[in-house]
Amino acid sequence: MPTRRQLVRIDAQRLADAQAQMRTTGIDAMFVGPSADLRYLTGYHALPLERLTLLIVPADGDVSLVVPDLEAPRAEQSGAPSFAELVTWGETDDPFDRVMDRLRAAGTASDGTYAVQDRLWSAFTLRLQERLPGAGWVPGASVMRPLRIVKGPDEVAALREVGAAIDHVHALVPQLLRAGRTEREVGHDIAELILGSHDEVNFVIVASGSNGASPHHETGDRPLEAGDAVVVDIGGRLDGYCSDETRNYAIGHVPDGYAELHAALEQAQDAAVEATRPGVTAESIDAAARDLLDDRGYGHLFVHRTGHGIGVEEHEDPYIVGGNSEPVAPGMAFSIEPGIYDRGRYGARIEDIVVVTDEGVERLNHRPRGLQVV
Amino acid sequence: MPTRRQLVRIDAQRLADAQAQMRTTGIDAMFVGPSADLRYLTGYHALPLERLTLLIVPADGDVSLVVPDLEAPRAEQSGAPSFAELVTWGETDDPFDRVMDRLRAAGTASDGTYAVQDRLWSAFTLRLQERLPGAGWVPGASVMRPLRIVKGPDEVAALREVGAAIDHVHALVPQLLRAGRTEREVGHDIAELILGSHDEVNFVIVASGSNGASPHHETGDRPLEAGDAVVVDIGGRLDGYCSDETRNYAIGHVPDGYAELHAALEQAQDAAVEATRPGVTAESIDAAARDLLDDRGYGHLFVHRTGHGIGVEEHEDPYIVGGNSEPVAPGMAFSIEPGIYDRGRYGARIEDIVVVTDEGVERLNHRPRGLQVV
Repeated sequence: MPTRRQLVRIDAQRLADAQAQMRTTGIDAMFVGPSADLRYLTGYHALPLERLTLLIVPADGDVSLVVPDLEAPRAEQSGAPSFAELVTWGETDDPFDRVMDRLRAAGTASDGTYAVQDRLWSAFTLRLQERLPGAGWVPGASVMRPLRIVKGPDEVAALREVGAAIDHVHALVPQLLRAGRTEREVGHDIAELILGSHDEVNFVIVASGSNGASPHHETGDRPLEAGDAVVVDIGGRLDGYCSDETRNYAIGHVPDGYAELHAALEQAQDAAVEATRPGVTAESIDAAARDLLDDRGYGHLFVHRTGHGIGVEEHEDPYIVGGNSEPVAPGMAFSIEPGIYDRGRYGARIEDIVVVTDEGVERLNHRPRGLQVV
Repeated sequence: MPTRRQLVRIDAQRLADAQAQMRTTGIDAMFVGPSADLRYLTGYHALPLERLTLLIVPADGDVSLVVPDLEAPRAEQSGAPSFAELVTWGETDDPFDRVMDRLRAAGTASDGTYAVQDRLWSAFTLRLQERLPGAGWVPGASVMRPLRIVKGPDEVAALREVGAAIDHVHALVPQLLRAGRTEREVGHDIAELILGSHDEVNFVIVASGSNGASPHHETGDRPLEAGDAVVVDIGGRLDGYCSDETRNYAIGHVPDGYAELHAALEQAQDAAVEATRPGVTAESIDAAARDLLDDRGYGHLFVHRTGHGIGVEEHEDPYIVGGNSEPVAPGMAFSIEPGIYDRGRYGARIEDIVVVTDEGVERLNHRPRGLQVV
């Protein structure tokens, strides 16, 4: 079992910051269902269920957490009652009656502006809209993005820790890769290793041979063969924060053309990391990797953005993508993961998490980035 | 590895039925993101991502599937292109431009009525509403509920198969339960067993001692002790259909008062199953279990509904709950799972899946329901 390090303690400041952001942007209240935002604000890791669980955050005043009766024990154990008054509803109640009661108690206007957490199910969003027909609706990201995009020192420490944890898994991957084993068998063993150093497995991608040319290949029944390139992209969660690291391996020998491709990819990944420092735009970091791959003749095979933010979610702001002219700032953490996908043949991707520092950038993954022949 | 039995083949009839339902109810188009509905309609098991994947189903005419470029290989492999034209978007495109193009091509009115699949993230729902400011919005369930609530013979066969698969796991649970092992260790072994007879693990609840009194307890680090009651509620997915079965075990000896409680629960579960036949209301099935537990003095400890529908999702219509006066009909499949939760002491729940037949009811789980001392 992993030790629960508790590097990050959730305190009332997060909700206070959200409320301050709401007052600045003219939002009367925010609704947050089961999501990373709920966990970020209150520590409650709620199950996504057909029964409504909803945090109601007015711009001023007390926060409420509406939960089904039978989730009350879990909500209480989570520590959320330190930050929000628990309001329970029974199996034959309409939970939206409770929501409206709380809004009335908070004095928010029925024709006000309401933020809805980005992942709230539409079934709930439509019910809220039905109950508040005169209201305006804005994405929850308008409140939560500024809070979550810059990590505090405790959050950076948690990302450093989980980065080391996934490094440890990648160090053990070579011994799992053998011709004849299926992707699924390897993936199963990797999931076990992730659980050994994390609290949860978030995802395991083992993409061998031509499967490597699909960036989000689902680990399947293909057996590894000599001469396969294998993309291994894995991540988990420790103390609430996520890891995400990709390395490439070759079984027995390196397929034709792959060594050159991989060398170019290493340079592209280095170029993007080196381009990262406070004040440069997200798109310029993307361009650093893309330009290098264009120069080497692989640009048309680099079919995705260079990276995504990471924290309490695997994918969050900032996105390192063309068109994102936002400058990066100290405390922003994201992946740098250029890839080359040659459909029908093979693929490769090198991914590390980095965090922007006051002076430049810190890598949070430290495994050798070169192609490993196993 | 489980054999992929392919009892259920997805054909174009499902989309045709959805379109017929839309015409009947005056819905111009339906939007479906990554969800059980998407899989039900097209076979595509899409990842829930921040990048938009959206099936657009007009009431008349051709269906489109908008997918990010880098998900295109998975979408193609899924077989979805047999049912929907694939429309891809690149990393720097606005995918909602593609959505609007497809709506124009389908000739749907900008002030029409649109259904949104129930679990679409609000970030996407709000973007659709922004693009279609004059439109009306209804829950996707208004289209999908009538299709999914009654299972065809192939679906019932799939539920029977996955019911037998989870029976097989429960038969092996007693050998995993020993004083000193933690819930998490037992849960881990159960997950392995589920993978041995299913394609996926959906959930594993091992709730020992007083943890059993929280219906949705998260399997944790508590070690099992002699004299513990242990609630084991587990489910997986095979060939796209879900299992869900709960049994109760006692470690070494039965705690005080638990044998009587469990006997009452068995009678309540039997009473609800026996009450199930075509034409009776969902709430009357709930009442059959509830009245018996009321009579025995446990009614106040039965804090949840009696059951939920099951199929391509673990929880779906029909819900067996007070206030649901809908009559059940042949082909409806649902859990019957009364529970008793004595906070601070222990809990118990007995759950089987049943399907309504032309004459009455068929149980899809067959493990003995009595308390097992291990």
